[in-house]
Amino acid sequence: MSCVFCDIATGSSPAQVVLDEPDVVGFLDVRPVFKGHVLLAPRAHVATLLDVSADLMPVLMGAAQRVAGAVVEGLGAQGSFVAMNNVVSQSVPHLHVHVVPRTKGDGLRGFFWPRTRYADDAEAAQYAARLRSALAQP
Amino acid sequence: MSCVFCDIATGSSPAQVVLDEPDVVGFLDVRPVFKGHVLLAPRAHVATLLDVSADLMPVLMGAAQRVAGAVVEGLGAQGSFVAMNNVVSQSVPHLHVHVVPRTKGDGLRGFFWPRTRYADDAEAAQYAARLRSALAQP
Repeated sequence: MSCVFCDIATGSSPAQVVLDEPDVVGFLDVRPVFKGHVLLAPRAHVATLLDVSADLMPVLMGAAQRVAGAVVEGLGAQGSFVAMNNVVSQSVPHLHVHVVPRTKGDGLRGFFWPRTRYADDAEAAQYAARLRSALAQP
Repeated sequence: MSCVFCDIATGSSPAQVVLDEPDVVGFLDVRPVFKGHVLLAPRAHVATLLDVSADLMPVLMGAAQRVAGAVVEGLGAQGSFVAMNNVVSQSVPHLHVHVVPRTKGDGLRGFFWPRTRYADDAEAAQYAARLRSALAQP
């Protein structure tokens, strides 16, 4: 199975690489939300966040943290948006963490709208209970 | 300084808590993007991703991973959106990881639009060089 991010990780596909480490590769998104938008991918093929091992998690997210600092220090951004899509809206089925430089007034509404409401407290409590139950599964 | 997420962490403000652990608290966003939208916050006050210690990172993101699994297992979502805003668009200045259940056709465009382009390869290379340089700082 061909995977464009595996190909970038091995160097067989070109990319503007910004971070090149044993377990993680970071490169520019070719269609950035804002210029300097980085994708961080585990070098080994991992499908989604659910598949990240306990060993890889701090390596991947430590890299995301450093890139979130670099968009501020290196590009003059005021902040960052760090996000990943798992399965739905995931354009490449190889986990990638987006790090997007943010500046006040840049026009990104992000994922904030539209928002909804729970019908009442009982409905919210029922959602919370379903999540607690799922989290309690081994 | 009053902080609404510190107050939720200590139990002095009400919330629909879904995850209650020594270092991380997870609770329903009161204005969800989709019902079951969880916010995960370090129990101790941490402003942004840049301030997360190496000890806390795997704890926080391991919790995000488990909640991303729980929205699938517990709510029947097909996937998830996991994101954090640092400084810009950060409504509460206490780091919180959003975990949003996703279903195909749910209408969330996420942060995908609009996208831009680099003027040319040279411009992209220049952005990559600035990021590499910032990442190389101690």
